[in-house]
Amino acid sequence: MTPIITAFESSPDRGRGLARDMRVRWALEEVDQPYDVRLLSFKEMKEPPHLALQPFGQIPTYEEGDLALFDSGAIVLRLAQRHAGLLPDDADARARAVTWMFAAVSTMEPPIVERETARLVERREAWYAPRMALLETRVGTRLGQLSAHLGDADWLDGGFSAGDLLMVSVLLRLKGSDLLDEYPNLTAYMARGEARPAYQRAFAAQLAVFEATQAG
Amino acid sequence: MTPIITAFESSPDRGRGLARDMRVRWALEEVDQPYDVRLLSFKEMKEPPHLALQPFGQIPTYEEGDLALFDSGAIVLRLAQRHAGLLPDDADARARAVTWMFAAVSTMEPPIVERETARLVERREAWYAPRMALLETRVGTRLGQLSAHLGDADWLDGGFSAGDLLMVSVLLRLKGSDLLDEYPNLTAYMARGEARPAYQRAFAAQLAVFEATQAG
Repeated sequence: MTPIITAFESSPDRGRGLARDMRVRWALEEVDQPYDVRLLSFKEMKEPPHLALQPFGQIPTYEEGDLALFDSGAIVLRLAQRHAGLLPDDADARARAVTWMFAAVSTMEPPIVERETARLVERREAWYAPRMALLETRVGTRLGQLSAHLGDADWLDGGFSAGDLLMVSVLLRLKGSDLLDEYPNLTAYMARGEARPAYQRAFAAQLAVFEATQAG
Repeated sequence: MTPIITAFESSPDRGRGLARDMRVRWALEEVDQPYDVRLLSFKEMKEPPHLALQPFGQIPTYEEGDLALFDSGAIVLRLAQRHAGLLPDDADARARAVTWMFAAVSTMEPPIVERETARLVERREAWYAPRMALLETRVGTRLGQLSAHLGDADWLDGGFSAGDLLMVSVLLRLKGSDLLDEYPNLTAYMARGEARPAYQRAFAAQLAVFEATQAG
């Protein structure tokens, strides 16, 4: 049975691959599993049928027969546990990869999202400049720590894993920002992620959705 | 081999059980596993021996023989996968419990932590009152969605799971805040978590650390 994921009908990132369905698409491509996509309008995301699948009214969700999941991290983990390609075989190494999955979404991503939110919501407030300075310091601290850990390794812990998939996805939110200028090893790490054929296929698929809505 | 976790030598929450070692202590008590604790000063947390275990300089960590993990969510998941008591037996139900684990730390916790951070860091800024209003609206939205999902159920999805352990832990950060006043089902949910004997044992253990430092 082909699983179904949900994604934005009209992605606010305009096809730059930053919506969280991209993480699930990338994981599905890494493990070579076909999938279908159901597109949702912003209105539909807040209505009961979708809230029954995703109580916070977000995308993506994942439906496979009777199983319905949400949260991109949990969906990627499910795929990684069921199919080869996203977690090492060794049990200890698997646990370390899962550590990086959680670190990506609960340690690295929140200050990055907070900065994005401030850029959207607080841009016209009198406090914007000093607030942004605080937020950029906070993001910079995390980037420095991650850069120190990565060093000159290709991936966070041995070979490419679901931990890298989520960490690269989180860092890509900063693409084009000068916050990354000090950390060439992180920009190289992101580029290694983006260069993976599975990433490329997933990126093309989400971009095609955006382009179709523009054409329509 | 008894695992070793790390915790604050002097917890900033003064023994209220809000530091993230509490989540791991609670999980260890739920699965009835003994553990040792290594206490760290703030200075030690930022030094190379600890950074080798936890690149972001935080607690808790988890060491078990040659395996070293960090991130409380990942540690709780490791314990839940290795011992009975924190995940259902059914594979689909396990995946849903893991969804709630990720939702707790990546959807519910970030706005709650952001509010706490603002209370510490931005309290004296001119923008504090309007910023706090924004943040409380954001937290309130998430609480309303969670409350609507929980309804009159005891736990988020069937019986108590690691998803509830993390979600209750996250919500307890708001204990005493009037943000919870509108959601009696959430305060009852938190109380059910706190009433569990495993929670009580974990809470007593972390409080004993705080009281010992005060006595010393």
